[in-house]
Order: sequence, then C-alpha cells, then structure tokens
Amino acid sequence: MLNPGHYLDTMRRDGPLVHNITNYVAMNVMANVLLAAGAAPAMVHAREEAAEFAGLARALTVNIGTADPEWGHAMAESAAVMNDAGKPWVLDPVGVGATAFRRDLSARLVEMGPTVVRGNASEIMTLAGEAGRGRGVDAGDDVSDAQAAAQALATRTGGVVAVTGTEDYVTDGTRALRITGGHPLMGRVTVMGCSLTGVIAAFCAGGESPFESTAAALAYYGLAGQRAAAKAQGPGTFQVHFLDELHAVTAGDVDAAAPVHTA
Amino acid sequence: MLNPGHYLDTMRRDGPLVHNITNYVAMNVMANVLLAAGAAPAMVHAREEAAEFAGLARALTVNIGTADPEWGHAMAESAAVMNDAGKPWVLDPVGVGATAFRRDLSARLVEMGPTVVRGNASEIMTLAGEAGRGRGVDAGDDVSDAQAAAQALATRTGGVVAVTGTEDYVTDGTRALRITGGHPLMGRVTVMGCSLTGVIAAFCAGGESPFESTAAALAYYGLAGQRAAAKAQGPGTFQVHFLDELHAVTAGDVDAAAPVHTA
Amino acid sequence: MLNPGHYLDTMRRDGPLVHNITNYVAMNVMANVLLAAGAAPAMVHAREEAAEFAGLARALTVNIGTADPEWGHAMAESAAVMNDAGKPWVLDPVGVGATAFRRDLSARLVEMGPTVVRGNASEIMTLAGEAGRGRGVDAGDDVSDAQAAAQALATRTGGVVAVTGTEDYVTDGTRALRITGGHPLMGRVTVMGCSLTGVIAAFCAGGESPFESTAAALAYYGLAGQRAAAKAQGPGTFQVHFLDELHAVTAGDVDAAAPVHTA
Repeated sequence: MLNPGHYLDTMRRDGPLVHNITNYVAMNVMANVLLAAGAAPAMVHAREEAAEFAGLARALTVNIGTADPEWGHAMAESAAVMNDAGKPWVLDPVGVGATAFRRDLSARLVEMGPTVVRGNASEIMTLAGEAGRGRGVDAGDDVSDAQAAAQALATRTGGVVAVTGTEDYVTDGTRALRITGGHPLMGRVTVMGCSLTGVIAAFCAGGESPFESTAAALAYYGLAGQRAAAKAQGPGTFQVHFLDELHAVTAGDVDAAAPVHTA
Repeated sequence: MLNPGHYLDTMRRDGPLVHNITNYVAMNVMANVLLAAGAAPAMVHAREEAAEFAGLARALTVNIGTADPEWGHAMAESAAVMNDAGKPWVLDPVGVGATAFRRDLSARLVEMGPTVVRGNASEIMTLAGEAGRGRGVDAGDDVSDAQAAAQALATRTGGVVAVTGTEDYVTDGTRALRITGGHPLMGRVTVMGCSLTGVIAAFCAGGESPFESTAAALAYYGLAGQRAAAKAQGPGTFQVHFLDELHAVTAGDVDAAAPVHTA
Repeated sequence: MLNPGHYLDTMRRDGPLVHNITNYVAMNVMANVLLAAGAAPAMVHAREEAAEFAGLARALTVNIGTADPEWGHAMAESAAVMNDAGKPWVLDPVGVGATAFRRDLSARLVEMGPTVVRGNASEIMTLAGEAGRGRGVDAGDDVSDAQAAAQALATRTGGVVAVTGTEDYVTDGTRALRITGGHPLMGRVTVMGCSLTGVIAAFCAGGESPFESTAAALAYYGLAGQRAAAKAQGPGTFQVHFLDELHAVTAGDVDAAAPVHTA
C-alpha cells in the first residue's frame, strides 16, 4: 500500500511555489494552509499577469468559486502554460451545478485536461454529466454515489479525480483508492475543500505520479483534521489547531495512521 | 416578551442557503459565522450568475463595503429576484456616509424595499437623511441618537431597521425592541457587523415575522459575543471563541439570558 | 536612542483612520491587525470612490499584491490626494519582481514619492534596479544584502525605506536603524508583511518624523510577534496570540525591549 509520508517529505524539502487562481473566500486561508504545510503559495489572478506568473510556479490551482469572464481567460491561459511545460494543475469546480456560468467555465477547463480534479460528490457528478443533488456549494450526495462519475471523468480528462467528503475517493480511471480521516467539524468551517486543492497541487509539484501524490495529500490533510478536531471545542478552535497540525504532522505520523485503502 | 430561542431552533433545523453579496473583507468570516450558527452560506457576486443564484437561496444579504458599479447591478438584480419570490433580503450600508458612490448605491437599494436594513447609528442616520458623525466605516454616533432615524427609515421601506452598537435597537416603524449583550472587544474585531447581517438573513429565512426574527438573531449573536469575551484574552482569542460559541449556544441559553426588552 | 513607545501611545490616542488599497489575501487580517493595534482601518479600492475616501483618511497604504490596471489608477489617484494634503502614504511592492505588470505599476508609484516603502529584501532590491533572487512573493535575499539598495531607493523617493525580514533595516538615505524582534514562525503565516505596512501607516499618521515613526512601528510589531511566538504551538495559535499581543503590548513594553539599534 502507498506510503503517504514520502510525498509529504518531498513536498517539504522542495517548498514548491504554488500559483493559485482561487476564490476570494479562500485566498487567505488557502495561503495559510499551504504555508503551514511547507509550500510557498502565491495568489495571482489578474489577466495582465496570471499566465506570466504561471511560468514561475511549480504547480497551479484553478478554483471557480468567485470567477467572472475575465478570470476565466486568466485561468485558461495559465492552465495552458502548465500544460505546455508539463507542470501539474488542479481544477476545483466549486458549486458547478449552481449556475450556467459555472457549468460553462468548468466544461471549458475540463476540456484542457487538468492533472487532477477535486470536488465534492455533487460537483463531480455534475461535471461528469450526471444530475446531482447539490444545493449551492454544498454536497447533497455521498462520495459513494459519485464513484462511477469520477471514473468516467478521469477517463475523459486522462487525469486524476478526487471526490472528497466523509471519506475520500481517488481514481485515475483504472485504479482507485479510498482515504479515511477527517472529522465532521470540517463541514462547519468554510474553504476546507478549496484549501485541500492547494495541498494536492503542492504534493503533485514533486513530479511523481499524480494519482499517488493526490492520495498522499488527502491522507495528510485528513490526519491533520482528525488531530485538530481532538483538540477543538468548536469550529473556531478547530481552525486554529488545524493550521498547527498541518505544520506538526510528520511523514511518520501519516504512515502510522494508515489512512489509504484500496477502493 | 419574545422567545429568541424558537427562531434559532428553526434556523438550525432548516440550515437555510443564504446568498451573500458582501465585501471582500467579510467574505471568509461571514461564511464561517453562518456555518458555525447552522446555516449554509454562499458568496456569489459576479453579475453573470448572481441573480440566477438568488433563485436558489432562501435569503440574500447585500453589503456595499467594497462594491463597484458592476456589483451594484448584481445587487439590484438579485434583490429583485428575492422581491418577486417573496423571499427576505437584508441591506448592510457599510460606511454609507463616506462617499457619493455609497450614498447613491444605498439610496437605490433602499428604494427596492429591503426586508431588513442593518447598520450602525451613523449609517442609519445617513440613510434616513440625517447628518451623522460617522468617519469612514466607524459609528461616530450612539444607537440612542438613531432611533428616530430608524423609525423613519422603516416607515419608508416598509421593512425592519436594526441599529447595532453597545445595545441594539430594532423597529418596524411602529414597534421597537432593545437588545442587550455583546462586549466592547467586538469593536476591536473587523466585520462583526457584516457577519451579523448574514445571521439576520438566516433567521429571516424561516418565513416568520422579520421584526421578531431580527430581534432573535441579535439576541443570539450578542450572547455568543458575551460568552466568547468571557473566555478571551484579546481580539485574537475572542474571534476563535466567538465561532465556538455561535456553534454551542442553544435556544435555551438565549431564552435564559433574556436579552430582549421593550424600547 | 529612539523611544518607540511614544509613537505607539500617540497612535492609540489618535486612533487614526487608515485607508488601505491592499490585496484580497490581506484585507481581513490587515483590518484586524490595525484594530488590535488601536487604529481605525478602512479597505476601499474601487476607482469610483478611492480618491474621495483618501480625503477622509489620516494615512494611506498601497499594496500591489492583487492589483489590476483599474486598481492602479485608484492607487495613483489616492496617493496624489495624500501628496497634495501633505499626508503620509506607504507603498508595499508585493512580489514586484514576478511580473512586468508589477514592475510597471511599482515604478509609477515610486515616482510619486511614497512617504515610506516597505518590502522584503528581494522586493527592495528589484525596486532599486538590482537583480534580486526573489521567487514569486518570497524573499530570496537577506536584509543585509539590500542595505545599499534601500539607501539608493530612499534617496530617489526622498522618503523612508524599510526592509523587513529576520531583522529589519530602516533608512531615509542618510540615517539608518536596525530593529530586532520577530520570530521564524512569522514566515509560516501569510500577509504578515502586508499587515505591518498598515501599522507603519498608522504610526506615520501622527505627523512626526516618518523615519522614526517607521522604526517605532517595526519595534512594536516585532515585539508582539516575539511574545505571540512564545505562547504558540504552531502557525495557527501564533496568529491568534499575535492579535492579542498587538492589543496588549504597551509603550513601556516596547521601550523596555529596546529593539532599535544603530545600523
């Protein structure tokens, strides 16, 4: 079985510059999550500089949570830079089922072949063309409902798809892994999924298998969440301890927790 | 006298989707406040999707803190969706006295008849056409100075007006309530008022009297603030405990605190 | 030697309104930092109102972290208002070496003669025309490498230049001071530099020497960081304690710490 600790150590040794075109709600927390984990985040979305900045970065994330048409261009142009250079990028289709604008923008980005797509069950089902029950930005569906959609989507993009929720599911269309960990309190805190997308990108920056790097990122993130929840009295203290745990968790800790299972 | 706990229980049972067109400073904290309270927030402001998203939501908030002309259109179009569907929306006229742009945008939104307007004393006085002493986004006036302005404004909009500060004052133009609670530390933390606007919208989403729902929201919020301040050593620890307390406070706690008084 | 406590007391007595045109990542934290310190922050960037708002403020900060061309106009117009009124403004050239857009915008703002420029070593070296080793928004260079660049830049602007890092260096082109304090954990937390820029502006709002006011702001900020780190278990708890310490540190505390040295 996969040893996630190896990927954590590689990421921390490299401290990769991760370029994020992410939503306004997530920007600050996502930067702090990446810094606590050991990466070097930058939030750059203006069309005048996004693609140029992508040339400097080791990995890119694209999150449609508060996009507009101009951002859409910056996203596509930056993703193209990553594709041309063979560098990884991760798509986060926040609330894709909610509006026509989100569906159109996501479809355009999916066509570009993201290295990884990460979403909740409803988002992945919507992207794969199935009718999910998501409402706004919530998941109305369970991860187990979205496995076939995830496989179909991975086959279409030629990349990896991660469905996150109570348990996580990762597939490259052929292989699949199930990752345990996390805590229900994470559902009472905003941008936990958006920030995870950044950690996946940081893990993929090392250039090893995106499938295994993604599983390792989910394992690490879930363990930090579990440990933070054990110290928390509610969603406020959870957030504080979560950053501390992202900083404190070691490769040995993640390997010992053994959260990666065949699916 | 009003039992605020009933409205808290209704909100938590429903977990209403609250659509927020709010300022950049508030987005993350407001989402976390709404999640901790038990609602389902979404931050959506792009004109390409805001009105469509409003159709999915149970309540809307409109906050002019970092608006621009394009946002102004998204705000008006989303508020019109709520008006047409008979769903509540809450206006937060942040710093309305500071610039001509804010005054014009607020006047246009007031004309649309918000279900609730929430502001500090200076903002409510400015909206009502009185010359307040506010400087930038601060309240330079006391809540008690703004009671006549609040009544006049409520009569004009046909809705509810809430003036918040050391004590809070709520009126529908005829009836009025005074709500105690809170703590001076809340004045050393940003976006406490903006986030409260979201909680008012979540309470109003239940479809009961906006006047009583607003008073209940203020009672709940003030108690959480009071309890958090008792555990805090400063504005940093206050914010953390505040989210925990928003999550922990029960209907019985708010009823027992009896913070709602006739005004 | 400089007594930094005097400048802290002046700032707290005045509670100056500080207008910030800052990046999206920093907005919330910077507002909370300024409130905890004792100032009155406002985040206003729309071109329709920024210059008008600058007229109300005691000091302005301009941070290029997530700017676009429209913001660039708002920045220049607001800085011109401050220059005309003889009020201080502080430039924060975040990641100036990363893209042509940032270099051009920064060059235009430097030409306007900011009262203070604050940046990390790589940013100051880039602004001064030297080739730094910064990557994205990180400092790839040490503060000591940037002293000559800082002096040259201060001579060019006729203002003050602060280079911040493990130790800080402040110069007006002739005099120079070195400020100790802070903690390595501050490098694992985002927007610590951006928020410091706001504190410098608040200290300069008192109208005393910008050189000494800046040194005092750095001394105060570094001590708060040092005290917070002593209580922290990681970057999450650090942030919380840091706001508490910004609120708690007294003029006597900063004077006793004696962190200001001749350079």
